[in-house]
Amino acid sequence: MPELRQEPITKNWVIIATERSKRPSDFSVKKEKRKGGTCPFCKGNEGKTPPEIMAYREKGTKPDTPGWWVRVVPNLFPALAKTGAGETHEQNFYLTKPGAGAHEVLIESPEHDASLETHSQQHVREIFHAWRDRYQALINEEPIQYIQIFKNEGSIAGASLEHPHSQLIATPLIPPVVDEELKGAQEHYQEHGNCIYCEMIKHELGVGRRIVAKNDHFLAFCPFASRFPFETWIIPQQHQAGFDSINDQQLHSLSIIVQEVTQKIRGSLNQPPYNMVLHSAPKGHSHAADYHWHLEILPRLTIVAGFEWGTGIIINPTPPESAAEYLREVNTNLVEEKERLSWQQVH
Amino acid sequence: MPELRQEPITKNWVIIATERSKRPSDFSVKKEKRKGGTCPFCKGNEGKTPPEIMAYREKGTKPDTPGWWVRVVPNLFPALAKTGAGETHEQNFYLTKPGAGAHEVLIESPEHDASLETHSQQHVREIFHAWRDRYQALINEEPIQYIQIFKNEGSIAGASLEHPHSQLIATPLIPPVVDEELKGAQEHYQEHGNCIYCEMIKHELGVGRRIVAKNDHFLAFCPFASRFPFETWIIPQQHQAGFDSINDQQLHSLSIIVQEVTQKIRGSLNQPPYNMVLHSAPKGHSHAADYHWHLEILPRLTIVAGFEWGTGIIINPTPPESAAEYLREVNTNLVEEKERLSWQQVH
Repeated sequence: MPELRQEPITKNWVIIATERSKRPSDFSVKKEKRKGGTCPFCKGNEGKTPPEIMAYREKGTKPDTPGWWVRVVPNLFPALAKTGAGETHEQNFYLTKPGAGAHEVLIESPEHDASLETHSQQHVREIFHAWRDRYQALINEEPIQYIQIFKNEGSIAGASLEHPHSQLIATPLIPPVVDEELKGAQEHYQEHGNCIYCEMIKHELGVGRRIVAKNDHFLAFCPFASRFPFETWIIPQQHQAGFDSINDQQLHSLSIIVQEVTQKIRGSLNQPPYNMVLHSAPKGHSHAADYHWHLEILPRLTIVAGFEWGTGIIINPTPPESAAEYLREVNTNLVEEKERLSWQQVH
Repeated sequence: MPELRQEPITKNWVIIATERSKRPSDFSVKKEKRKGGTCPFCKGNEGKTPPEIMAYREKGTKPDTPGWWVRVVPNLFPALAKTGAGETHEQNFYLTKPGAGAHEVLIESPEHDASLETHSQQHVREIFHAWRDRYQALINEEPIQYIQIFKNEGSIAGASLEHPHSQLIATPLIPPVVDEELKGAQEHYQEHGNCIYCEMIKHELGVGRRIVAKNDHFLAFCPFASRFPFETWIIPQQHQAGFDSINDQQLHSLSIIVQEVTQKIRGSLNQPPYNMVLHSAPKGHSHAADYHWHLEILPRLTIVAGFEWGTGIIINPTPPESAAEYLREVNTNLVEEKERLSWQQVH
């Protein structure tokens, strides 16, 4: 029998449709061919992007030339522009706002064929270091209210260029999904006096069935109301509302667990497309007691179709308990032994 | 400069990203090959589906044999099952509800290669007749609270079988999207004393720029805060909250305008995949003064990716004004001349 499950923060529902259940091998993923050459993100092609905003590069090398390992440039086709004020105004019956904010591309490597799974661990840390740098640089700018960092991997997941990159879009308003999370978390805080995410972490550590991995600072688990097969959240175990507050030790831990989880998902499920999505506190809430930043990894093995658009209820054929059990058991050789979660620790 | 636009009912935002703007010819659609043969929805294969719930069929022909033109069967892999009570219960920290409701498939034709665009107009009316029949049959059943009818066309839009069909999923709760619409509409009603959808229709008829087509009973337009390129809403011009209240004359008009709009979209944009999604009042609200049923046609030419999942804000590269102008000018030869909207009427 299918089960409706409520996401405890936003109160949204998902359907865990056991009748439609699929084994990992049942998901077909179309292989995409890698093609380099004229890619504007490859080393040597720096002139094909707008001038760089920032880069981690070898001393003595010049901006917009080779010598970098992580490089940030404006998006050539920005969804939100750097110019313009943020005033809402009524256009007859409807409300509009100038599309002001920022849209940056974080080029994660000079190498076209690299990926989060195959980088050195140090290199992964450099990527998240760049995330933090850009987040901190933009969060206090006007008219920015929220920083959305995300990564689309694979064309089905929305990547129009295959060279490894993530993106940052800064919005002049608090987006509806974040607003829903904030309201749900505030309500919980007012009623129970604690952070609902901290409560969820405690609960998941106690139950253990949905844990994928954990290390010193982070927990990776398949949420109870997972919308996608193998959906995995990575969350700091200690309370922290804004991603901009992450310290260097945490950055190190984060890079280890993100690499471990992406290795598990990509290595065992035929390299599925996925979105990786940061959820963080909006401007002014970075130290809030009732919000808790986290990273959502959303493999795109199912299709959001008419039912989901009409209702907002997502049908997921894979129970998170099965997904987590499967992912826990995938070996990731590149991860240091001591950082790995043993089955015993989980139970 | 991109523009943020607010959807006036739910208050959600979209980004109309003019910098990313595409002409209709820029959208690439992968052609899908049609393959019949072993299709369980084809005539002659009636034994491959669960026993039919209802069919429009020639007199004297038996259930689950040929002779039908529209046929309704249970979904073999239901997202929600017919059995089980609907009580919510707490599973430790989390809330669940048995996945009870209904999941039916409305097979729209015995012919594998048929489509909404190529059916006779009478046949399209029969399809919507079946929608109404099943809607009316289920809306008062327990524990059903809402009826979601939808159609996925093309595998990118979620159709796992290509034989023309729509689906009905009856849910034991009011889904979040519907709840949002209801709340927004109620708020508007309390403040202004009228239906916000009626207000929008009046406004769109006055402005004209976003109109795609209209006839005696219906208006088709690209909404101001369109999430998708060429998104088109079809709405009864007279106030009507529940789809179950539609009368025969309206059914006739609906079938004409739906065929016209799908011909325009599919005929001029390289047969894009699309979702067609009914939005109707939940149980008990069928005659509400503050809600207004409508049909949303969502061509799937763009990809919902990390930014959208993180924020709930959808990026649309095609302004609805451009989409509507383009669709208005597409000729649809199969539509009766008198039903067509002339350019003069729009301006």
